[in-house]
Amino acid sequence: MKRLKERRLNKIRKEKGKKIRIALAQINSTVGDLEGNMRKIEDYIKEAKKAECHIVAFPELAITGYPPEDLILKPQFIKDNLEALKEVKRNTSGITAIVGFVDKKSDSTSKDGASIYNAAAIIHDRRLIDIYHKILLPNYGVFDEFRYFKAGKKYPVYTIDDIVIGVNICEDIWFPVGPTRFQAHAGAKLIININGSPYYAGKRLLREKMLLNRAKENKVVIAYVNLVGGQDELVFDGQSIIVNEKGEIVLRGKAFEEELLFYDINIPEKNVKTGGKRKAEKIVITNKRLSIPVPQIPEREIKPLSEMEEIFRALVLGTKDYIEKNGFIKVIISLSGGVDSSLVATIAVDAIGRENVMGLFLPSLYTSKESREDTYELVRNLGIKLIEVPITEIFEQYLKTLPREFKDMPQGVAEENLQARIRGNVLMAFSNKFGWLVLTTGNKSEMSVGYATLYGDMAGGFAVIKDVPKTMVYKLCEYRNKREGNTLIPQRILWKEPSAELKLDQRDSDVLPPYEVLDPILKAYIEDDRSFEEILKMGCDVLCAKNVITMIDNSEYKRRQAPPGIKITPRAFGRDRRFPITNKYRSY
Amino acid sequence: MKRLKERRLNKIRKEKGKKIRIALAQINSTVGDLEGNMRKIEDYIKEAKKAECHIVAFPELAITGYPPEDLILKPQFIKDNLEALKEVKRNTSGITAIVGFVDKKSDSTSKDGASIYNAAAIIHDRRLIDIYHKILLPNYGVFDEFRYFKAGKKYPVYTIDDIVIGVNICEDIWFPVGPTRFQAHAGAKLIININGSPYYAGKRLLREKMLLNRAKENKVVIAYVNLVGGQDELVFDGQSIIVNEKGEIVLRGKAFEEELLFYDINIPEKNVKTGGKRKAEKIVITNKRLSIPVPQIPEREIKPLSEMEEIFRALVLGTKDYIEKNGFIKVIISLSGGVDSSLVATIAVDAIGRENVMGLFLPSLYTSKESREDTYELVRNLGIKLIEVPITEIFEQYLKTLPREFKDMPQGVAEENLQARIRGNVLMAFSNKFGWLVLTTGNKSEMSVGYATLYGDMAGGFAVIKDVPKTMVYKLCEYRNKREGNTLIPQRILWKEPSAELKLDQRDSDVLPPYEVLDPILKAYIEDDRSFEEILKMGCDVLCAKNVITMIDNSEYKRRQAPPGIKITPRAFGRDRRFPITNKYRSY
Repeated sequence: MKRLKERRLNKIRKEKGKKIRIALAQINSTVGDLEGNMRKIEDYIKEAKKAECHIVAFPELAITGYPPEDLILKPQFIKDNLEALKEVKRNTSGITAIVGFVDKKSDSTSKDGASIYNAAAIIHDRRLIDIYHKILLPNYGVFDEFRYFKAGKKYPVYTIDDIVIGVNICEDIWFPVGPTRFQAHAGAKLIININGSPYYAGKRLLREKMLLNRAKENKVVIAYVNLVGGQDELVFDGQSIIVNEKGEIVLRGKAFEEELLFYDINIPEKNVKTGGKRKAEKIVITNKRLSIPVPQIPEREIKPLSEMEEIFRALVLGTKDYIEKNGFIKVIISLSGGVDSSLVATIAVDAIGRENVMGLFLPSLYTSKESREDTYELVRNLGIKLIEVPITEIFEQYLKTLPREFKDMPQGVAEENLQARIRGNVLMAFSNKFGWLVLTTGNKSEMSVGYATLYGDMAGGFAVIKDVPKTMVYKLCEYRNKREGNTLIPQRILWKEPSAELKLDQRDSDVLPPYEVLDPILKAYIEDDRSFEEILKMGCDVLCAKNVITMIDNSEYKRRQAPPGIKITPRAFGRDRRFPITNKYRSY
Repeated sequence: MKRLKERRLNKIRKEKGKKIRIALAQINSTVGDLEGNMRKIEDYIKEAKKAECHIVAFPELAITGYPPEDLILKPQFIKDNLEALKEVKRNTSGITAIVGFVDKKSDSTSKDGASIYNAAAIIHDRRLIDIYHKILLPNYGVFDEFRYFKAGKKYPVYTIDDIVIGVNICEDIWFPVGPTRFQAHAGAKLIININGSPYYAGKRLLREKMLLNRAKENKVVIAYVNLVGGQDELVFDGQSIIVNEKGEIVLRGKAFEEELLFYDINIPEKNVKTGGKRKAEKIVITNKRLSIPVPQIPEREIKPLSEMEEIFRALVLGTKDYIEKNGFIKVIISLSGGVDSSLVATIAVDAIGRENVMGLFLPSLYTSKESREDTYELVRNLGIKLIEVPITEIFEQYLKTLPREFKDMPQGVAEENLQARIRGNVLMAFSNKFGWLVLTTGNKSEMSVGYATLYGDMAGGFAVIKDVPKTMVYKLCEYRNKREGNTLIPQRILWKEPSAELKLDQRDSDVLPPYEVLDPILKAYIEDDRSFEEILKMGCDVLCAKNVITMIDNSEYKRRQAPPGIKITPRAFGRDRRFPITNKYRSY
C-alpha cells in the first residue's frame, strides 16, 4: 500500500519536473531568549512537517536572536546556545532544518583556544549533517561582526536525492564573487540564504535587485529567509522571498509579520558550468527519493507595501517589540498638540492598543489655546486617556528658589530648558510610579541640530521617531489619516507652524531654516558624509550651511545621551554613526 | 673646515660603536584638529632638529588625533589630513620623521575605488620615503579598526647609513609572529613602534613585559612612542619607552604629560638570523653618514608611578582634556557631602584649578547635618566657591501639583527620583545660564547596578569616576589626602556609611551588599564575563549573586543614556561593552 502511494507520487514528480517543498520560517526571535526561541523554532518545524515540507529554513542566529552583541563574549551564553540547538535537533525527524546559531570550534591558533562563528546548522532527521560558517562578515554601519566572529572558509553543497543545495548566510550572498558562485559551480541549483537583515526605507528594493542578479548569474533558485521584529534600534522586516533561476520573484513573505511560507520549488535542469578553481565539499544528506505531496501549494505573491506604509509599519513593530520584549504593558507620552507627539501617540496606539497608551498634557504659560484644543481632539480621535498637569507653579517655584546671581541674568535658554525638564521630571514620575514606559517624541531633524532639551523632551525610554526627518513626519501623518478614512490626527496639527512653546511667540523657524531646506542638508551631511563644498553645490546658502553643520557637530553630546530609537534611514544615529564628542574638525 | 668636523665626529662614532639619536614625541593631539596637530608636530620636529636628532617619531594617527571614529568615513576629512601631512613634510629638512596619519590608496577591488589605511609616513629631508600600513588591526574592546581600515601587507625596512630600521604601528608589535619578527629577519636592528594605546590600570606592566619579550626574541632595540591625552572615554598615558636588545628598559617617558624624549641608541652588532620565508622590501633612506653629536644626552630613567597615583593622574588628565578640548572653562559639581562628589571635586581642582570649579549644595529635608558640615569643610579645604540652593520647596510644589491618582499611591522610588531630578534640573539651569560644564559623580559600582537616577544625579556632561569601583573611590581619596600631607577630603566623609539621602535613614546597604562584597562580583560579571556558577565559586551567596546580576542586566537602559566617562579598568561601559537593552538572557 505504502509502495503504491510512493509510486504514484514519483509519477507526479516526473510529470512535474524536479521539485522540492521548502518552508521559510520568518520568525521573530528575541535576543537572549534561548528557551523561547528554541520553542518557537520547534513549533515551526512541526508546522512545516505537517505541510509535508522537505526543508525548513530559519533566519540568521535564530537561536540567540540578532544581534546578540557582547552576549557572544560570554562563554556560558555560547554553551547555552549550543544546548538549545541540540534540543532543536531532537525534533527534526523526517525533515531537513537549517537553523542559525553561534558555533564554537576549538582552534589552537586562537587566543582562547576556540573560534566563534556565525553559523547555520544543517540538520536532517535528528542528525547534524553539517555546520556552515558565515564567510563574509559585515563590519560597517550597525554591524560589528569582526568583533565576534571568525570568518568561515568552506562552502559545501548538500545533495538530497539528486538535488544539490547550498546554504549561506546574509552578507555571503551580496557579492558576485562569493559563496553563492562557488556553490553554484559545485553544482548547487538551490541556494538557501538565511538572514538578519535590518530594515531601512529602500532596503527591500536593493536587496531584491541583488537577489535577482545573483540568481540569474548563477542560474540558481534562491530562497531568502529574513528575521522579523524589533531589537533596540533595529527592526527586521521579514519580506523573505524566493527567486527562480530566471531572476523572477515567485514568492514574497509578508512585511513585519511572523509567517511560515511554503513553496514547491522547481529545480532548474541546467546550471552554469560547474568546476571553477575552488573545490567544494559535497555532502549527501540522505538517499531518500523526494516527492512532492499533493495537494500542491497554491502559488501566491505578496505585493510590496507603499513607501509610507512600509515605514509606518516598521515604526509600529519596532515600538511594539521594544515595549513588549522589555516587559512593559503601558506607555506614557507627553502630548503638546504638535505633530511629532501626535504621530508617536498614533504609532503607539497601533502598536499596543489604545487602552495601553496614556497621554500627559503639561501646559505652561506659553501653551496656546490651539495646542490645548488640538491635544484634546487628538486624544478623542485616538480614544486614549489624558492626564493634565500644569507646570506653571512648579516653574515659578524654581525661579523663586534660584539665587540672585541666576536671576540677575536675562531670561533665555536656561529658563526654556527648565520648563522642558520639569515636563521630563513629571513624565518620569508617572513612569516610576506606575511602571509605564515613556516614549519620547523628537524627530531626526531635531536630533540632528540639537533642537531638543537633554533630560527634558529627550527624557524617556524609547525614541520612536528619532530617525524620521520632520518632512517625513508630515507624510506619515497624512498616510495614516488617509488609511483611517477619517481624520485621526487633526488637520490643524498638520497645518500650523511648528513651535516648542517655551517662550512667547516662539517658532522653530526662529533658529532653523524651513524643514524643506533643512532636511536635504541633514541627509547630505549625516547620511551621505558630503563635504561643505558639495552641500553648497546643492544650492544651499553659505551661512545656512555653516550654521546647520555647526549645530550638527556641536550636539553630538546630546545624541550620546539620547534614548534608542528605530532606524528607518540608511544611516541612523547610534551604532550606525560613531562620532567623537571631542572633535575639533570643521569642514568649512 | 666642515670636513674636519665630520672626521672628528666619525672618530667619536667609531669609538662609541654604532649609534643613532632618536626623539620620541609623545604629544597630545586633539581629534579632528588637523591644523593644531600639524603645528604641534612641526614644533616638535624643530625641537628635535635643535637637539641634532637623526629621527623623530610621533604617535599613531598623530595628524588626525586618535581615535577619529566615523570622521574617517568623510572623504573631505581624509583629504584634509593628507594636506596636513604634506605641510609637515615641508618642514623636515635634515631629519627623518615618522608621522602617523590616515592614508588613502586607489584600489580597483574596493567599493569606493580606494582603500583607507592606518599609516605611518617615513619622511626624510622633505621627501616622502615610504608609507607603512598597519597590518594587525584591533577590532575588540574599544577598537573598531576593521570598520575604517584595510590591513597593510608589506613590512619594509629602511637603511640609514648601514643601520637598518623597521617601523610598525601599535597592535603590530603585540604578536610574536608579526611585522616585528619579519622586519628583524630582514635585518632591522631598531624597531620604531608608534602608538595610540589607551590607558587602563595595569596596562603599562602588560605592555612593557610584551616589549621586553619582543626585543629579546628578535635581538632588536624597540623605540615605543605613545600618545598622551584624553579623548572622550579614553585617556592615553604616554609612558613611551626604549627597550634594548637584551630586554632592558633604557628610557621611560613621563606618564600623562606631553614630552619630547631624546636618546642615543646603541645599535646591536648581532642580529637574529636574517632571511625567513617572507621577503621585505629594503629602502635606503639616504647615504649620509650618521654621527652622534656631542655632548651626548645624559641617560635617565623615569620610575613608574604607584598604582593609585597613576589612576588618579589618568582621571585628572582625562577630565582636564574633556573640559578644555570641548571649549569649557569652568565646571559645576553637585556636592552632597559624600565620598564620590568629594573625589570628583578634588580631581576637578587638580585638573583646571580651584578658581574654575563651582560647588552646588542642594539640600533637602533628608540632608543630614553631617552632610552639610562635610560639604562646607571640603569646599574650604579645596578653596572653591559654593552655591546653596535648597530643593524642599520645589519638591513640595511638585507633590502639590501632581494629580490625585499619583498621590493616592504610597511614596517610594518615584518621590526619591523626583528629588534627584530637581537637583539635575537646577544643575543644568546653572550650566545653561553660565556655560559651566556639569561633572557627574556616579561611580562604577552604582552605574553597574543602576543605583543612580537617570536625568537626576546622572545628568551632566562628563562622568569623571564612572569606571571607578566604589572601593577604589576610597583608595583614591586616601592617596590624594596622603599626597596633600594635610586632610583635603574630610576624614568623616571616608568613615561614614554611604547614603543617597533621598528618604529618611536611607543607606546604600538597604539594597546593596557591602561594597567589598559587591565590587568583586561586578568585576567578575562585567569585566571578566564570568558565569553565575563561577561567581558562586568565588564564595558568593546564591541570592546575592542573583540579585546583583539581575540589577546589572536590568540597568543597561540607564547606562545607554549616561554621559561619557574615563576608562580606567580593562573593561569600561560604553564602546568597551556593547550590550543589548532588549535582552532576555538570564545566566542563572
